Amino acid sequence: MLKELKKLVYEANMELPNRKLVTYTWGNVSGIDRKEGLIVIKPSGVNYEELKPEDMVVLDLNGKPVEGKYKPSSDTATHIELYKAFKEVGGIIHTHSPWATAWAQAGRSIPSYGTTHADYFYGAIPCARSLTDEEINTEYEKNTGLVIVETVGDTNPMNIPGILCANHGPFAWGKDAAEAVHNAVVLEEVAKIAFHTETLNPKESHISQTLLDKHYLRKHGKNSYYGQ
Amino acid sequence: MLKELKKLVYEANMELPNRKLVTYTWGNVSGIDRKEGLIVIKPSGVNYEELKPEDMVVLDLNGKPVEGKYKPSSDTATHIELYKAFKEVGGIIHTHSPWATAWAQAGRSIPSYGTTHADYFYGAIPCARSLTDEEINTEYEKNTGLVIVETVGDTNPMNIPGILCANHGPFAWGKDAAEAVHNAVVLEEVAKIAFHTETLNPKESHISQTLLDKHYLRKHGKNSYYGQ
Amino acid sequence: MLKELKKLVYEANMELPNRKLVTYTWGNVSGIDRKEGLIVIKPSGVNYEELKPEDMVVLDLNGKPVEGKYKPSSDTATHIELYKAFKEVGGIIHTHSPWATAWAQAGRSIPSYGTTHADYFYGAIPCARSLTDEEINTEYEKNTGLVIVETVGDTNPMNIPGILCANHGPFAWGKDAAEAVHNAVVLEEVAKIAFHTETLNPKESHISQTLLDKHYLRKHGKNSYYGQ
Amino acid sequence: MLKELKKLVYEANMELPNRKLVTYTWGNVSGIDRKEGLIVIKPSGVNYEELKPEDMVVLDLNGKPVEGKYKPSSDTATHIELYKAFKEVGGIIHTHSPWATAWAQAGRSIPSYGTTHADYFYGAIPCARSLTDEEINTEYEKNTGLVIVETVGDTNPMNIPGILCANHGPFAWGKDAAEAVHNAVVLEEVAKIAFHTETLNPKESHISQTLLDKHYLRKHGKNSYYGQ
Repeated sequence: MLKELKKLVYEANMELPNRKLVTYTWGNVSGIDRKEGLIVIKPSGVNYEELKPEDMVVLDLNGKPVEGKYKPSSDTATHIELYKAFKEVGGIIHTHSPWATAWAQAGRSIPSYGTTHADYFYGAIPCARSLTDEEINTEYEKNTGLVIVETVGDTNPMNIPGILCANHGPFAWGKDAAEAVHNAVVLEEVAKIAFHTETLNPKESHISQTLLDKHYLRKHGKNSYYGQ
Repeated sequence: MLKELKKLVYEANMELPNRKLVTYTWGNVSGIDRKEGLIVIKPSGVNYEELKPEDMVVLDLNGKPVEGKYKPSSDTATHIELYKAFKEVGGIIHTHSPWATAWAQAGRSIPSYGTTHADYFYGAIPCARSLTDEEINTEYEKNTGLVIVETVGDTNPMNIPGILCANHGPFAWGKDAAEAVHNAVVLEEVAKIAFHTETLNPKESHISQTLLDKHYLRKHGKNSYYGQ
Repeated sequence: MLKELKKLVYEANMELPNRKLVTYTWGNVSGIDRKEGLIVIKPSGVNYEELKPEDMVVLDLNGKPVEGKYKPSSDTATHIELYKAFKEVGGIIHTHSPWATAWAQAGRSIPSYGTTHADYFYGAIPCARSLTDEEINTEYEKNTGLVIVETVGDTNPMNIPGILCANHGPFAWGKDAAEAVHNAVVLEEVAKIAFHTETLNPKESHISQTLLDKHYLRKHGKNSYYGQ
Repeated sequence: MLKELKKLVYEANMELPNRKLVTYTWGNVSGIDRKEGLIVIKPSGVNYEELKPEDMVVLDLNGKPVEGKYKPSSDTATHIELYKAFKEVGGIIHTHSPWATAWAQAGRSIPSYGTTHADYFYGAIPCARSLTDEEINTEYEKNTGLVIVETVGDTNPMNIPGILCANHGPFAWGKDAAEAVHNAVVLEEVAKIAFHTETLNPKESHISQTLLDKHYLRKHGKNSYYGQ
């Protein structure tokens, strides 16, 4: 069942230790089959060294398990809300990658300080607001997704394919699971460089709107000219 | 003698270089057989590259050597005090892992700034007070243990399975040697992220009690739902 | 065609992931055959894992493709301006290496704080000015090159073989592609050490002119005595 | 000739890339045969990947070459001054390891902030004064050695087996080449932890004299009890 998607989601999950985005099991990647309306996600708390493609869990968009011997990631309800709200998204990732998590813990959005950022994120990477006590105590993971959706608002989620959750860590997404991981790697790198930028020049480092446009649009959209 | 425990303690010690928690021989892990009242610990100053399971040293809770050709870790008396005071603890680790040691040298507890911390430590990771000159000059290693026990106080040691010793470094523990090492790896990662959090937002980054509860209790205790 | 140069440029490009100067495809190296007036450069957006010597693209100094199945690096026009202005230069590199990029994003030149810097760069590594909106909107990559040339001015480009572009990242060069990469590795290391120097002593850390002279000139020029 | 010493010095040099103390050729280790009055040192500017035991250069204490096809390290005259002044020293190392170099560039001694430091260095790791212009312009490398000797003064060099040279980088030493490298690795680690300690607590982090004594003396001298 969904053999190809399971393989893709498995491989995307295995990129997390390879790219040093996770310590132990602190991350999860999912992918969606839009036609079938089914999600494939990493099982909860299983070590990457033991993970196999067939361990991936299949659920529907109500969170109902469809196939798999394991319980899905404890963050599954967050993924589901994002898939429901963001129709363009085909893959989602959550990690506690250390630089992005530092910004999330500081409750700060990552300003666009340069072209490394602008090549992927068309503006600041926002930090979503803290959840209220009630949102935490009832359906915490689902509400995490809803607050992300609230923060993204009218922005096209593909233009800024990542976000920070206050006191928590980053989520990122893409057209499929592999692109979601790619964007999470970039988010971590951008978070690191932005940290050092601020230390070197605490006042004025923002990229101009013109340079932001130039770099984002030379890689994305109909007039892009980067790549083959 | 205690062949299985020696193997576990050996493997836990070998995780230290693998996880980059130690430079040279700057760390030690022990485990206890509660039924026999015997401790197994790394020998003092032996290189990890040369370490073998049979090199592990066996002692009783009075520090009396029971088996082994080597002298035990010079920190053995600290381990013993912790085993005597914390009945739930089955494994203990001491390292000079660099981020945790920076906090220890700064004499500061690590505040709970996010869910990465809350998933493992149910509150700030305390920094124990400095030893008095007299405590240093008489039975230094034993007194290090006693000051840790004093700092933990009435807290269940399993709820915050690690501590910093002022101007020294971290100790961590768990239900066995492997879990102790796991908690030491997390402590180091949490120390690193907290450092960067403070630089990004020196004023207000603390996690709310509600989110701390949510994350700690979704992984620990009778209503936990993380993992399989 | 230019088989030897393609091999050198290919190998220089492969040093980027080896030396951890790039994430994904964020870098490019070129080399020039001055006699033929031809440039060899990495193709745009091709993964390093898949890159082969024969994938290198050959162009003339007007940017006209001469050989190769791929499109050249999107930064080719910048390389061309540098080759046209700096006759001594035989190889050029652009990366987003994180420490150098932090300085570039901060809009700051890297002061010469020590002999590590002085061994390679005979003075501060300058940060070129931001491009005007018009320069960005018309022939951005070419204008990036022209602003670098403007910044270098009358300085011999071989004496300070690297530069930062504001809100962007570093360029470096050398007598060939291999030396360009070597200088980019040094620039990244120097950027890292200078960052920490400033934190430790925000006021006065500059190297004296005499020590700068001593170290630069013991490695470069007719009285050099470093190496074999 | 001095085959055993050449092998030891070669192996000590190879630890530099292994322990990540050097970029390219930025380091050198030497050893001395006190009976013969001969020094063995790395050749200048030779890549570590190509280095062989027989490439080591042999000199006498006047710097006169005795054997070897290569020119010795350009820092040889510094090594010689240290061997002449410090009779207990059997091996010397110089690197540009990044954390120690940051302190050197900042012109600051590394205070003893904890037991990691105290286990090896019996007090602050000093930063030697800058050389005068005249000292730089005449016999620079020899004068670097003389200023180190001046800074160490009446201290037993084995009690604090390392130093920083202002705007330059660290030197370290030991009873042989292997111990010198070991001490340089520790110096780098201590420099890193001290950097982060100061950021976390800019005011008061110093280790007490009693704890410094305890840790240094449990590893060194006649009452030591660390190790086998």
